[in-house]
Formats: sequence, structure tokens, C-alpha cells
Amino acid sequence: MNIPDIDLPRVIIIGGGFAGLRLAKKINKKHYQVVLIDKNNYHTFQPLLYQVATSGLEPDSIAYPIRRTFKDHDNFHFRLAEVKHINHTKQHIETNFGNISFDTLVIATGAKTNFFGLINVEHNAIPMKSLIESLDLRSKILQNFEKAIYSNDIKEQERLMNFVIVGGGPTGVELAGALAELKKQVLPEDFPDLDIRKMKIHLIEAAPRVLAPMSENSSVKAHHFLKKLGVHIWTNTQVTDYDGKLVTTNGKINFHTDTLIWAAGVEGAPIKGIDATKIGRGNRILVDEYNQIDGLNNIYALGDVALMRTKETPNGHPMLGAVAMQQGVHLAKNLNNVAKSNKKKCFKYKDKGTMATIGKNLAVVDLHRFKFQGFFAWFVWMFVHLMLLVGFRNKIIVFINWAWSYIRSDKGTRLIVRPYNDRISKKEHDNTLHKSA
Amino acid sequence: MNIPDIDLPRVIIIGGGFAGLRLAKKINKKHYQVVLIDKNNYHTFQPLLYQVATSGLEPDSIAYPIRRTFKDHDNFHFRLAEVKHINHTKQHIETNFGNISFDTLVIATGAKTNFFGLINVEHNAIPMKSLIESLDLRSKILQNFEKAIYSNDIKEQERLMNFVIVGGGPTGVELAGALAELKKQVLPEDFPDLDIRKMKIHLIEAAPRVLAPMSENSSVKAHHFLKKLGVHIWTNTQVTDYDGKLVTTNGKINFHTDTLIWAAGVEGAPIKGIDATKIGRGNRILVDEYNQIDGLNNIYALGDVALMRTKETPNGHPMLGAVAMQQGVHLAKNLNNVAKSNKKKCFKYKDKGTMATIGKNLAVVDLHRFKFQGFFAWFVWMFVHLMLLVGFRNKIIVFINWAWSYIRSDKGTRLIVRPYNDRISKKEHDNTLHKSA
Repeated sequence: MNIPDIDLPRVIIIGGGFAGLRLAKKINKKHYQVVLIDKNNYHTFQPLLYQVATSGLEPDSIAYPIRRTFKDHDNFHFRLAEVKHINHTKQHIETNFGNISFDTLVIATGAKTNFFGLINVEHNAIPMKSLIESLDLRSKILQNFEKAIYSNDIKEQERLMNFVIVGGGPTGVELAGALAELKKQVLPEDFPDLDIRKMKIHLIEAAPRVLAPMSENSSVKAHHFLKKLGVHIWTNTQVTDYDGKLVTTNGKINFHTDTLIWAAGVEGAPIKGIDATKIGRGNRILVDEYNQIDGLNNIYALGDVALMRTKETPNGHPMLGAVAMQQGVHLAKNLNNVAKSNKKKCFKYKDKGTMATIGKNLAVVDLHRFKFQGFFAWFVWMFVHLMLLVGFRNKIIVFINWAWSYIRSDKGTRLIVRPYNDRISKKEHDNTLHKSA
Repeated sequence: MNIPDIDLPRVIIIGGGFAGLRLAKKINKKHYQVVLIDKNNYHTFQPLLYQVATSGLEPDSIAYPIRRTFKDHDNFHFRLAEVKHINHTKQHIETNFGNISFDTLVIATGAKTNFFGLINVEHNAIPMKSLIESLDLRSKILQNFEKAIYSNDIKEQERLMNFVIVGGGPTGVELAGALAELKKQVLPEDFPDLDIRKMKIHLIEAAPRVLAPMSENSSVKAHHFLKKLGVHIWTNTQVTDYDGKLVTTNGKINFHTDTLIWAAGVEGAPIKGIDATKIGRGNRILVDEYNQIDGLNNIYALGDVALMRTKETPNGHPMLGAVAMQQGVHLAKNLNNVAKSNKKKCFKYKDKGTMATIGKNLAVVDLHRFKFQGFFAWFVWMFVHLMLLVGFRNKIIVFINWAWSYIRSDKGTRLIVRPYNDRISKKEHDNTLHKSA
């Protein structure tokens, strides 16, 4: 892999998400050589993917080139590669660009979409876990209306203008809200040839309420906000099948739709080579309170892919960016302590609260002591997300897009950029550096 | 095609580029029903494609959703479709979504890359005429360096870090300059593992000087600016072949490169159904001084695809956005005149000048009376391009990106977004609404 051999222990971090990026930043590179590997050359700010999907933000504003983050760091090496296998006997990892040995390995590969074994759903639904997927969803949504114009078949038109979102967590709720705003603000003007009132947005949730992990008050308010925006909510409902045209559920209701968006769940995305006995609930890797994998004393897992069972968290921590960030920083401190022969400390999650935005002036925020909803919550949501975005340029551009949307009730980036033409698609495959997911 | 039949003559415009967009805007929709057809749902500001390709701008800032432009226009219909054939006997056009009849037809399909019959070049080189192509080029450029890190083969590394641009017109010159800035400002910090001094940028031009259509002074200055930025310029040189690894020329010099960027020429992109006798030099459609196609009294061609031979322009007008815009506006006026039974006027091109930017503070401008180069020219270039961009949001975002690049010597959008993963690529093809080019 062409990493220089120097006289420092080598820490390999797999994944440049919230956890991996924080760890790589904070770890002391006077004591460690750090190699960060990702299959993309950018960090994705996942909480805003839904805004890319609904034409609110450019993909480039919520992604950040990883190399730029580390431009002044010595003893740091980024590598664009896909990790195929971990070999802990040989103490190396295998990638599509060869093997590389480690002294310490950190798995921060995050989560992937969980279809709960529903093969047809997996084949026909659209997930939204990556920049590419959210761009694809954006094009799909806009294309549906372009197609609907041509259709003389009422059933087909209905399917094209029906949007079914599965999963009433923050992603599903935020996406439903943003789609409802598209319907209200943008689509009637964009498509005078269509009766946009026919557009339906359905949100399906298996639990009895949306935003189930949040306070009941926030949940009720979010439900109310969604209703106000015209979203149809189906709680206590589970999707059982989807053939690309018809969604069936365990209830009495079925949906005819061309677009099923799957935001119903995620599971850990561990890498091959980790023993099955070390994989727990939700496909996450079992770790101790130092994020160390049980029985492997120099291999760690962080964030969504890690399952740390403590008294307070018998099922592990919630799969949230906040947990990932804190674990990344914490492990950096621990490794820096070890380098100075100090003791490692146990990880404690500080729950600073959760929030979700439904639309303009409509959000819900649960802090430790305060819970509030509406305009102020929406303002707090925007501020926190702007601050968390990586990169000053990104912050400004997102801010301008939000201000623009707010003032003009517009969403500016509604380009259909697929399909890549045949020629380029073919070339892509020829030139493929790695098969990204 | 589901266009309402109303009691007004129908004008179909094929192509939402500079010419088609202006015409569609200015034509009086009290007198005409207007149908604008494009294979993309957005207008592309082609002069800035090279900045997308070199990580300076987001694709979304130089493209503009066509529907948004016309949101307040009555009797206007946009259709996302590909026109397959023009049938002037039956007075209709054939698209991938059915046929549609016209009273007046306007072909504003612009230009496509001209490889001058070099099949291998066409197969292996990268053109830069569309948003998709420029995004693909961006990823390719960045991927080359990611790959170069892994290479132990000096020849391969050389090929990956050699960039050969063919064509010393504005596109080639601006792209070479922007690549040189990437080399100077961004890549050494991004790739500390590589010796970026090994990166070479070659600009090949068949004519004796770059920017041949501009004044000699501007040409000499541009040459000087490029040299200053480290670009190798090969004038009086023509590419004869390229197998994906080796570029051969008619001179003594050959180039080993993985990346040949083709900006050497364009030709008209007419649509099937126009008689071969009506196609002239550069694959452009022969039109009279009203932009009417010879012998077809209700079919017009505008912009790059039109060849209007007059005393002053025996070979037609230059293939520039300025000509296209003026012809679009002019035809709108003529059609509006006809509706009021007034006379049509002949088109006269007002040459307001040409300009090209090479890098920060480095540009050349030829106006009618004044020719100037350097900082002021660069400032004028920026101002003019900002003003020409469609959409206020786009103007602000481009301005911020430019200000950011200027102050920080940075280019912010260096994401590798290809390849789309196999699953999505497959889906794309299944869902393909049209095969775009």
C-alpha cells in the first residue's frame, strides 16, 4: 500500500465517518503513524442527505474532501481503498490495493441499510445512506413528475405521484416533511401541466408513534406538523412486500407506488474476518468500555458498527452521529494516554439531546432538561447542523441555500443528473478504481 | 405528448441552451403556444464547465432548472424528451414519448464534440461538453492521483500525472490554467505522499498560437500566463492517435498519458430528418438571414447548429454563446412581429468581444475598441460571467466559491463521485427515462 515504514506504531482507521474522522484528527501523530482508509475521498454529513434528495442542497456542500481535513498533519496517510478482510493472526488487513500491517486497528465502518430480509423490498426500494443514493433519489423524484405528464394511464400516474417512506425515525420524518414542502412550494409552479394535489406522501412506521425514541411530546408535535403539511401517517404498520408497483403491509392498507423510500432501519457494516461470535444484535461488533473488541486487544470498533453493552445501555448505544463523534474523540484520548503510559478510561456517552426538523419553522428538540417544538426548535436545529458541518465553505453555502429557501420558498438544485450516458457508464466500469457502495 | 390543443400556432423549440432559452423567454405567449423540449431538465452554462471539472464549482451552480425559468409563463410547456426525427412533410417531430405536430419548429440543439474522425481518440479521450462529462473529468483527475500513490511503476505514475489537453481555444486554455492552479495550490497539500512536481500539463494546438481567433496581443499574453503557471504549450501540433496510453502527433513529440482531454473542436448537432443538402460546413444547418432553413419556411435553426452565411460571415458565425443568445432574442422578435403582421428583420451579430481567463488575476479580454490583459481583464471576466449565469442563487453561490478560492487559494468541491455502484447503475438503466448524451 506504499505507506512509509517509520519507527512509530501504526494505527489503521477504516472509515472516514464521524467516528473515524474525529479519531484521526485528535490522535497524537508524534506517537502514532495514522492511516485512514475510506472507499470515498470525502466525508459525508449524513444528517443532511435528505436535503440533497429533495433538491434543497448541493451534494458538494454536505460532503468534505478528507484529504483537506488533514493537510497539515504529519505522519498521516489517507488511502482511497476498499477493505476486503481483516486478518488478526497476521495483524494485517487486505484491501483492493494490497495488504497492510497494523499495530492498532480501528473499525469505524458505520452502518448500512437493513431490509430485514425483505428481498423484494431490497431490490425495488430506494435507500438513502450515501451521497450517491440521495442524488439518485433526487433524480428519481423529479423524473417521476416528468414521466407522469406523459402518462394517460390514471393508475400509472397515481403510482408515479405516490411517495411511500418507510420508517418514522428522524430520516423518514425529515424526508417526508421536505417532500411535503416540495409539493407545496415548488412542484405546482414547476408542473402546471399536472394536478399536484394528486401527489401523496405516506409515512409508514412499525411503532405506535413517529420519532419513537424521542419524548412523547416531541413525537406528538412532529405527528401534528407532518399532518399539517399533508403527510399521511400510518403507525403500527409494517411493510411486508414490494414488487416495484404495490406495497403490501401487515395492516389493511396497501399502496400503489413507483417510489418506496426505505428509511426503516440500519445495521452495522462490519468487515469480513471478525469472528461471528463477536458480532451482536444489529450486526454490530461487540466491544468493551474502551471500544476494544472482545478478545482482540489491539482492534477497536467505533460508532454505529460497535455494540458497547453497559448497565445503562444493555442493547448498546443509539446509532447516532453524536455517539460516533464522542467515541472517536475518546479513543484518541485513550491511545494518546497509552503512548504516555497513562491509563485508559471507560467511555461514557453524554446524551446532549436529539432533534428533528419537519419543515420551515417546524422542528422538535429534546435536550436533557428542556424539550421544545416549533420555530425556536427549528432555529436551534439549523444552528446545530451548521456548526457540525465540516468546512467553512460548506457552512456558508448551506446557510445561503437555507436563507434562500426560507425567503423564496424555493429549493434550488432540482437537476436530474442521471442517467449517466452509456458511454460514460461503460468507461466508469473500465476505469473503476474500486466498487463503492 | 399530452400538449393541450389550443387555438394558437404552436412553436416547438428543441434545446434549452442559450438560443432556445432566450427565444422561449422572449416569444409572446399571447400569440403562440410554446413547447420547449430538452433531454435534460436543466440549462447548462457551458462556459464554466471547466471549473466544475477542476473542483472549483458545484455542478448545481452552473446549471439551472428549466421549469423554474418559466414558472410564470402561460401557454408554455416544457417536455423532458429526446427528439428522434423531424418529419417536415407531416409537420411533426418524433420523440421517445410520441409524436407532436408543430406550426413552427426551431432547432436549437447546439454543438457536440468533433473528433475529426479519430476513432481511437473518440473512444479513449474525455470530452467536456456536458455537466456529466465535466463531473466525470473531475473524478478522473482526482482519481489519477489516488491511483498514482499505489503505483510502483514509474511509467504508470507518469501516465497518471500527465494531463494532455487538445485544443488551444478558450476551453482548452481555461482548463489548462485551472489545472495548473490545482497543481500549485491544492494538490501538494492534498497528496503529501506524491511528488506533485512530476505532474505535467500539456496544451496542444494545431494553429500557430493559442486563442487564435483573438487578437495577437491577447494570444501572446495568454501564452505567457500559461507558461508562467507551468503549462507546456505545443502549437502547430496535431494529435493523430491515442490508444489510452500514448498520444501520437504529427510532430516529433508524443505523450504518455492516462488522460487526454479533447477540447479541439465542436460540430453542429442537427437532428435526423433534415436533408443532407441543407447541412453545411461543420455539420451545421444552412439558414438564411432570418435563421430560416433554406426551403423550409416554418423551420428555423439557431446558435451553434445554424450556419448563416452572409457577406461578413462566409463561414457562418463563430460558435459562441453570444451568437446563440442574440439569435434567440432576434427570432423571438421576428415571430412576435409576424404575429402582428409586421415584417421580419435580418439578423446582425453584434460582436461585443471575447475573453478568456487563465488563472487568478490572469485573463485576456478583446472588446471592440479596447484590448486588455491581466488583473483588470480577470475582474471583467468574472463580472461578465456572474451576470450571464442564470439564477440569483447560482450567482451568489458562484461568487462565494470564487471569493473563497481567491482568498484561500483553494478549490472546494474535490469529490470523486463515480463510479455509481453496480446496483444503482443497473437501476438507472431500468428506470431510464431517456438516454441522454
